[in-house]
Amino acid sequence: MPGSKLPTVLVDPSVEEAENLVKEAVSRNKTLLVIGRCWVHYLGRAKSKLGPGERILIVKADGSLLVHRSAGYEPVNWMPGGDVVFNVQAKGKILEIRALRQKPVETVMVFFDEIQLVASLALVDSGEFSLYASEEDMQKAILLRPDLLEEGFRPITYEKKVEPGFVDVYGMDKDGKLVVVEIKRKTAGKAAAVQLARYIEAIRTRADRAVRGILAAPSIAKDVQRILTTLDLEFRHVDPRKCAELLSRAETKKLAEFFKET
Amino acid sequence: MPGSKLPTVLVDPSVEEAENLVKEAVSRNKTLLVIGRCWVHYLGRAKSKLGPGERILIVKADGSLLVHRSAGYEPVNWMPGGDVVFNVQAKGKILEIRALRQKPVETVMVFFDEIQLVASLALVDSGEFSLYASEEDMQKAILLRPDLLEEGFRPITYEKKVEPGFVDVYGMDKDGKLVVVEIKRKTAGKAAAVQLARYIEAIRTRADRAVRGILAAPSIAKDVQRILTTLDLEFRHVDPRKCAELLSRAETKKLAEFFKET
Repeated sequence: MPGSKLPTVLVDPSVEEAENLVKEAVSRNKTLLVIGRCWVHYLGRAKSKLGPGERILIVKADGSLLVHRSAGYEPVNWMPGGDVVFNVQAKGKILEIRALRQKPVETVMVFFDEIQLVASLALVDSGEFSLYASEEDMQKAILLRPDLLEEGFRPITYEKKVEPGFVDVYGMDKDGKLVVVEIKRKTAGKAAAVQLARYIEAIRTRADRAVRGILAAPSIAKDVQRILTTLDLEFRHVDPRKCAELLSRAETKKLAEFFKET
Repeated sequence: MPGSKLPTVLVDPSVEEAENLVKEAVSRNKTLLVIGRCWVHYLGRAKSKLGPGERILIVKADGSLLVHRSAGYEPVNWMPGGDVVFNVQAKGKILEIRALRQKPVETVMVFFDEIQLVASLALVDSGEFSLYASEEDMQKAILLRPDLLEEGFRPITYEKKVEPGFVDVYGMDKDGKLVVVEIKRKTAGKAAAVQLARYIEAIRTRADRAVRGILAAPSIAKDVQRILTTLDLEFRHVDPRKCAELLSRAETKKLAEFFKET
């Protein structure tokens, strides 16, 4: 394999063999895997204990640490990297790996009493990660997190049919005014402003209260602010990448449940 | 190692050897590790592409999938498990692993062109995870996510000195009234209600506006609701475990930044 260094791998090592490779890996900022039966104590943002079971411990080159069980996409224990100090020690038949982070102070202690595999990796990775967001993603993100638009905004519906087409998001602001939101994933131009003005016009004729129009986009074209002001419409900066990240990070169902909580 | 099945491990395998072990692992619901140079396409909650680099792919027994780079505690790509179908194929020198989830529809495609290690694991894990939250954790969680208390609540300060002691959280509600919050991590009893009433009394004498008192706890003792009503105080259900989860899941800084965003 040109350009790649093969990992150092131990299968079914003794505690001492494991200790040596783990020490070497963390001291040389390698990426480390330890697989076996372990229990975990965590003290920091909260306090937790994990009873014995077979898991995957990952310690990355930057010191970030993850403990993964055999199911679930989330780690059961984790700690960000950065200012982390490791202490690795075999005590009798137990391999103790302690990671202490300085700011904020948090500690993960992993105790292995059976080790199936240890691997020390020198991963070379300069690949770029590109995230693409559609207008639909932005719409979903605003529905999930209405404060992306403004504080106190509550969505009522989306894709609401209004004479000239469909309103992206339709809701109410904290003062009880109706809000019509037009979303653009790129710089919003004059056409978007005019389209929004048409929706507002159609809704105002039937509404029993004030109606606000908001153009939500990463930016607006030159001179469009003037048009918005003339038409009594507003611009709100909404970043498509942030919307995509919100969606890609959130396990949608869990997050939705969480936001319902008060 | 009694009770444990050792992993099947291939170091520097050919594409065909890797293909066979990966196929076997996913078809038998083993936990799978593939380490090597890969690129990744994702389509689902958002759309992303990750350029070539050396990473760790984890596929768990439940079908959940993670791609980890050599730094950062978060996976660069991930998908929850459940209803996932895998398609594994060697095409020339490329090993393609496709994971298709049904609900919601999302697909991760991982393409390896250099494989350093493949491991198929049969992890046995019935260990219990216990999370402990202190009153301080609950306080932090409410400061970070004030809507845990109620919609529109804005904290002003915490550990505010008031004649009989320190107010846990002090803020303002959506109508501009002052709010004094007393936090208990267990069932709140009469003593907590009386303590809160004392703070309120001390603050009301100096405040230029209405003051509300909220007892935030997982539950209240019998008859305490009656006392609260008499003292014109309120009870709000706040779950310590949810607070701890919020803190343990959130990378505090990132989350804090995100909430500031409007």
